[in-house]
Amino acid sequence: MALPTTITLKEKYALFSDQWSPKIVAELNGQHVKIAKVSGEFVWHHHAQEDELFMVLEGTLFLDFKEGTQSIGPGQLLVVPAGVEHKPYTRNGEEVHILMIEPKSTLNTGNVTNDKTQESLPWI
Amino acid sequence: MALPTTITLKEKYALFSDQWSPKIVAELNGQHVKIAKVSGEFVWHHHAQEDELFMVLEGTLFLDFKEGTQSIGPGQLLVVPAGVEHKPYTRNGEEVHILMIEPKSTLNTGNVTNDKTQESLPWI
Repeated sequence: MALPTTITLKEKYALFSDQWSPKIVAELNGQHVKIAKVSGEFVWHHHAQEDELFMVLEGTLFLDFKEGTQSIGPGQLLVVPAGVEHKPYTRNGEEVHILMIEPKSTLNTGNVTNDKTQESLPWI
Repeated sequence: MALPTTITLKEKYALFSDQWSPKIVAELNGQHVKIAKVSGEFVWHHHAQEDELFMVLEGTLFLDFKEGTQSIGPGQLLVVPAGVEHKPYTRNGEEVHILMIEPKSTLNTGNVTNDKTQESLPWI
């Protein structure tokens, strides 16, 4: 058995610059741990079966829900339960470094397919 | 549907002082997100079926494996695959604030039962 690796997230974010394009950094229990740089608005969507955990390493991520808005910064986390409509975005053009954990089967745009949809995510 | 809640981890850690006693802060996809304050040594153990993700909010956590030692600090993460023997510990008496994600079924001491074993974890 190889020695498990410590992943330094800052080093991983330094490897790419494209936005809204999640990269896989680890997996556990049928889920992927993904990181992305995001700026501006994503689309309203939901994931029918999958809960989705959001954390933020740098900046502030906002999530609009039908019932209101939440913000997430470093040292915070939020779980979007399956089926709940949400729209991630950032304010004032800020680029935010986010981390997500969700089942491997999860499509980034959930029930929506558009130009941001990514069928297969790369490891980084 | 209630508005999903942003969890501020620092506020959660401030609510308890006992060590090696994980508290649940969130759940997703059949797993619990747990936090704990740890200092000193835990026991060698493994989890037969469950992968375990470790993150650190404050301090440095060390993990001994049969093949070597890894350290984890803020901004880093490490996944211990199912079946892999590991021993968490801290150095010089440092109290470290850790976060773990693992299936709800996971026993903290894995295949070992001793005075650190906790059958049922509280939410905080």
